[in-house]
Amino acid sequence: MPRHRFEAFPISCTKLLIHRINTIFSRLVRDQRLLKIAEQIVGGETYIHQSRINYKPGLVGKEFYWHSDFETWHIEDGMPAMRAVSCAISLTDNNAFNGALMLIPGSQHFFISCVGKTPDNHYQTSLKKQEYGVPDPISLQFLVEKNGIEMPTGPAGSVVFFDCNTMHGSNSNISLYARSNVFMVYNHIDNQLQAPRDGLTPSPRAKTFRHSAHCHIGNSAKAPKSAPCSRIVNAVSAVFTVLLLTNTCSWPIMKPSNLLEI
Amino acid sequence: MPRHRFEAFPISCTKLLIHRINTIFSRLVRDQRLLKIAEQIVGGETYIHQSRINYKPGLVGKEFYWHSDFETWHIEDGMPAMRAVSCAISLTDNNAFNGALMLIPGSQHFFISCVGKTPDNHYQTSLKKQEYGVPDPISLQFLVEKNGIEMPTGPAGSVVFFDCNTMHGSNSNISLYARSNVFMVYNHIDNQLQAPRDGLTPSPRAKTFRHSAHCHIGNSAKAPKSAPCSRIVNAVSAVFTVLLLTNTCSWPIMKPSNLLEI
Repeated sequence: MPRHRFEAFPISCTKLLIHRINTIFSRLVRDQRLLKIAEQIVGGETYIHQSRINYKPGLVGKEFYWHSDFETWHIEDGMPAMRAVSCAISLTDNNAFNGALMLIPGSQHFFISCVGKTPDNHYQTSLKKQEYGVPDPISLQFLVEKNGIEMPTGPAGSVVFFDCNTMHGSNSNISLYARSNVFMVYNHIDNQLQAPRDGLTPSPRAKTFRHSAHCHIGNSAKAPKSAPCSRIVNAVSAVFTVLLLTNTCSWPIMKPSNLLEI
Repeated sequence: MPRHRFEAFPISCTKLLIHRINTIFSRLVRDQRLLKIAEQIVGGETYIHQSRINYKPGLVGKEFYWHSDFETWHIEDGMPAMRAVSCAISLTDNNAFNGALMLIPGSQHFFISCVGKTPDNHYQTSLKKQEYGVPDPISLQFLVEKNGIEMPTGPAGSVVFFDCNTMHGSNSNISLYARSNVFMVYNHIDNQLQAPRDGLTPSPRAKTFRHSAHCHIGNSAKAPKSAPCSRIVNAVSAVFTVLLLTNTCSWPIMKPSNLLEI
């Protein structure tokens, strides 16, 4: 059945390969501490499928409904298998007040295909809110009854790895504490994008992602083998400054005390 | 300046004196354990200013922005002084996942007057969402910088008392756990409603609330002096059953294990 779906894109960042246009992120995705974990999880060399900032301001931050990233990447973008892992690094404290990420443990073992049809060109508005093509309540109930819900909270600099097929989402944020996370997806080098499923026309981003696979980072001679912690901390602090400047909310982002303590 | 404001009415309950039309709530508001606490806080006999259920279903429960109940009750309904206390009893677990109540400790010591004008008849839609006449970000920042934010969480049956002027609100609820609380407001018998401030026309509900003051519960001969715990537990369990029937979400409310353990 033809589908018109969308992806859980962040509000503030339409560049989904930010490590390609920003030297700070370029260094960050190559951090050996992160890279080694990702390679161990996916079982081999990786490249960056996506990199972005998921930005949820204080007072006006909106919820983002449950979804599996892989479900969309598989159907629309042509990712063959579940051999990708997402890495989220918090740039602000993540807590119970500010719409922290919620995940359903074990959900990565089940492929929940979303039903329904999304209006034409809906992807242009779906960047802000998910309204169509979401997982059905019965499937969510099935997943939650098995293992409940987890909400990893912690200070700025905390790191969470989760499978590309893990069901996740987040509530709104009326608190005064912004919630901003760096989000990077490490995909196995043998799991590069192919033609989308079900005869769908490849989306413009799929083309971008396929191109990105040409620049894998696993053993690139140009990539630094190791980035000293202080350099990364300084680098992420610089990103944090940028975030402050692009904050669309009148409330300033909280100053983090310990960035990237992994 | 003329104002057109609204009140933080619940979505599912337009009857704000539910204890007047339901025998279960009628007994509950007279529970001596609750009543004595309320009387101690406000310093004398009380009557019920409002009683209702604040209902936030799973998956689709919406956020409710920061507000002080007293600010509206004072300006629009003519409540003279801050001599009322709210009592919330959770009918479901309240946790970090399901949009639990958030409060700003100490905010009751500051009267934050909301600015702006709400569209005519906006109260008809404001039952679902606050968009106009909300406190300004600078005032919220001032309050939060003093004492932060608290989120009381706990199993069904937990009780929270908070001042009528305490700034509070809640995030959305995409979790699968409904969040439903009984909400009762004990007002000092000498603090009955008068004409609204600033020459506003009394709202229809203000008339209702003034009438309700004729039935104070402090030492009413008709009110039971003491309600055995088991009776109240059974009573609230019955309310819980009603909630299940009126749940507009396909997801069932979680079964509480210990109701009204105060």
